[in-house]
Amino acid sequence: MNLKIILKVLGLLLLVEGTAMLITLIVALVHAENDVPAFLISSGINLGVGGVFVALGHNAKRKIGKREGFIIVTLVWVVFSLFGCFPYMLSNAIPSFTDAFFETMSGFSTTGSSVLNHIEALPHGILFWRSITQWLGGMGIIVLSLAILPVFGIGGMQLFAAEVPGPVPDKVSPRIAQTAKTLWAIYLLFTFVETMLLWLGGMSFFDAICHSFTTMATGGFSTKQASIAHWSSPFIQYVITFFMFLAGTNFTLSYLAIKGKFSAVFKDEEFRFYVLIIVAFTAIISVGLYLSSSAGGELVFREALFQVVSIVTTTGYATSDYLTWAPVLTMFIFALFFFGGSAGSTGGGIKIMRIVILAKNGYYELKRLIHPRAVIPVKFNKKSVDTKVITNVLAFFMLYLVIFFLSSIVFTLIEPDMESSMGAVATSLGNIGPGLGSVGPAETFAHISPPGKWFLSFLMLLGRLELFTVLVLFAPSFWKE
Amino acid sequence: MNLKIILKVLGLLLLVEGTAMLITLIVALVHAENDVPAFLISSGINLGVGGVFVALGHNAKRKIGKREGFIIVTLVWVVFSLFGCFPYMLSNAIPSFTDAFFETMSGFSTTGSSVLNHIEALPHGILFWRSITQWLGGMGIIVLSLAILPVFGIGGMQLFAAEVPGPVPDKVSPRIAQTAKTLWAIYLLFTFVETMLLWLGGMSFFDAICHSFTTMATGGFSTKQASIAHWSSPFIQYVITFFMFLAGTNFTLSYLAIKGKFSAVFKDEEFRFYVLIIVAFTAIISVGLYLSSSAGGELVFREALFQVVSIVTTTGYATSDYLTWAPVLTMFIFALFFFGGSAGSTGGGIKIMRIVILAKNGYYELKRLIHPRAVIPVKFNKKSVDTKVITNVLAFFMLYLVIFFLSSIVFTLIEPDMESSMGAVATSLGNIGPGLGSVGPAETFAHISPPGKWFLSFLMLLGRLELFTVLVLFAPSFWKE
Repeated sequence: MNLKIILKVLGLLLLVEGTAMLITLIVALVHAENDVPAFLISSGINLGVGGVFVALGHNAKRKIGKREGFIIVTLVWVVFSLFGCFPYMLSNAIPSFTDAFFETMSGFSTTGSSVLNHIEALPHGILFWRSITQWLGGMGIIVLSLAILPVFGIGGMQLFAAEVPGPVPDKVSPRIAQTAKTLWAIYLLFTFVETMLLWLGGMSFFDAICHSFTTMATGGFSTKQASIAHWSSPFIQYVITFFMFLAGTNFTLSYLAIKGKFSAVFKDEEFRFYVLIIVAFTAIISVGLYLSSSAGGELVFREALFQVVSIVTTTGYATSDYLTWAPVLTMFIFALFFFGGSAGSTGGGIKIMRIVILAKNGYYELKRLIHPRAVIPVKFNKKSVDTKVITNVLAFFMLYLVIFFLSSIVFTLIEPDMESSMGAVATSLGNIGPGLGSVGPAETFAHISPPGKWFLSFLMLLGRLELFTVLVLFAPSFWKE
Repeated sequence: MNLKIILKVLGLLLLVEGTAMLITLIVALVHAENDVPAFLISSGINLGVGGVFVALGHNAKRKIGKREGFIIVTLVWVVFSLFGCFPYMLSNAIPSFTDAFFETMSGFSTTGSSVLNHIEALPHGILFWRSITQWLGGMGIIVLSLAILPVFGIGGMQLFAAEVPGPVPDKVSPRIAQTAKTLWAIYLLFTFVETMLLWLGGMSFFDAICHSFTTMATGGFSTKQASIAHWSSPFIQYVITFFMFLAGTNFTLSYLAIKGKFSAVFKDEEFRFYVLIIVAFTAIISVGLYLSSSAGGELVFREALFQVVSIVTTTGYATSDYLTWAPVLTMFIFALFFFGGSAGSTGGGIKIMRIVILAKNGYYELKRLIHPRAVIPVKFNKKSVDTKVITNVLAFFMLYLVIFFLSSIVFTLIEPDMESSMGAVATSLGNIGPGLGSVGPAETFAHISPPGKWFLSFLMLLGRLELFTVLVLFAPSFWKE
């Protein structure tokens, strides 16, 4: 085990977190509120500890093995969340350590569930810090899912990279560093454009930048207790819908689109299903809402579209409380909890690519029954998918649902109501934000008991890192030589 | 398509159903109640139509192709349920066709959900008919899952038969007819022994035989509105628990046990997990009930054991209403909805064998991540399981859960309460009987609207025939030459 390299990488990333705190310190200074000392001390701690870690690992061997990789990836999110608590606790915005950890993990995992009941009362620095944790988390997940995880043989992109033989036209760049830079440039560009549009649409510049951060990360933290419902402007709501959609799209497709290769984007099977799912669910829910309320057509369509895109991309903003809809419409939204964004996006959950492969394989299994001797491979983007990948996707899906069920059972110890329990677990595991029942879009997670908050924080981590990355650390054979 | 053989097989089976009605007629005559004409007419219809079908198919070619096989298997359950409605409707016990079909499908599929609210008021013939539909359904499912389905490449036993190469020591007999006879002999023997024991335990002979029928079929229909809670005798409850356990065990293992080969039984992996699951869930629920109630140790253990065995074997009898337990204990019971009996038993649901293979494969997937180049096959009973089988099992599990989720959503149109909706769908698909919320153990399905009853009837069929058998009929490629 190369412990030094683990220390060094974690140290470097703590320096990044410390820098983010310094930037937030500027925001706090500009508004001259009571959170200035908190960010001063927090950034000091982060930069200090980060520096010590880097110094301790200064002569580390450069080789990062598979095991070190799994450990680093999991530790990054845990260490980030631990050190990210300081601003909340030191500013007294969230005095309890449990609550502060929950809020920070919810931030870095781009979940968006919150323990805060009076968001508008908080100083600007704290609001900015909440948003920037999500933005950093989104940045991390892009490079993780598109560049790092495939190297370790997991994650959506392995379909293109490690497993499927032949040419790999969809990869942006063969070198990880270059890939990461390109994708971050797009991420920055989209964040910038959204900020400008929201500002033009009437948001304050501060709110615009905070919401752009949390939109692009499919995070869902808002600077307002009422979330996006605070702004009744259709323009603002449509802009956010559009950028949630972009954030839930594979970033390599956005790169192709920017380069003008639209036909390649529309040929991508995952993208087509992503659009299809949004269109289908929006249509059903629009009709349902139209029939069951007296609201006008555009409003009903906008509410349906916004909530569908918000949930399927795992952002979790709200302009309407779906728990007040007809039960069957609420259940349609709950079904979307189990889709998730595209592979290689900042969205969490099961991911559209897996759903498509699962659906195809399920249908082909019927064909295989009829023609038992025929070889009927599952094709994705016109290429045969290796059986190993299918087994992996099926195992992922199974593990996801088993974890969901078992956790829902255990969680009834904390939230006895089955609906609330299932909602809290599904939304944490899928990195969405709002759940059902007592943790619906109009509620917060403040009332959940401390063990419950730790449990949900663990589920956020598990879901964000695609289960296997974390679970592998619990396999005894991982620790054997 | 060999239509004649389909007609002939269905005709022969209608003759069997007609004969069962004649036997029931004797029961009705003995008790001299108002249901005599109903059974007279019903058996006449069944024997008449059966005879005509056999005559129409008299010169059918003997060859039953794959397609004919799938069609026959699905049609048998549908046609049986249609013709099995007559006694209920003609005797006015269940005047509505929808209700009668629901009750009959619930019988033949060995589900045990009922629309009846005054069971004790019904004539003995009708009560006997309810029980015998389950007994016939159980008989059908044994020969189907152990002898017929493997020939068509589906069902649990394919693991031993069609797919895994090498010797097949666990198969009772190579010839289908001989296998069926042997298994039915065991089924009859167990039914007889249970009847005697229940009679000795203080049940009336009539109740004893009815409950033996529905125990061995893991059906769950009772002659009392309160189900087994009607008898407070521990002896009766333990006897029923033991025979539910036997009915949920692979019948080939019972055959081995009768022949004295106990070591072979205890070496069987599915059997070990089946026992382990029952022990674990009983232990947890016993402790939970003990801590949350003032009842004594034996009573609490008996209630936990009875409910666990009843649900895991998909029988559905009740001696206690698990909806009145602490929510987390109810959720443990709900989790058992997704296990099911052993392969080759009369139990429904996902089946223990599939759960074991899924669990192993999920764990091995982690190992495969750590050692990507190593070939790590899933072993079951010390034999490697073919990748095709694993894909099939994973696809089955996925389809099962997808059908469960989608149906739960659709069913909120009928039962707006999410818990009731999920409970009704899960219990129908798993052929269990009681659900959650408005369809709990203390309730019936009488209040469900007609479209809801048809929908649940379809789910019972789908679950009973292991999904693929029915779904394959909806695949366009099935109907292409």
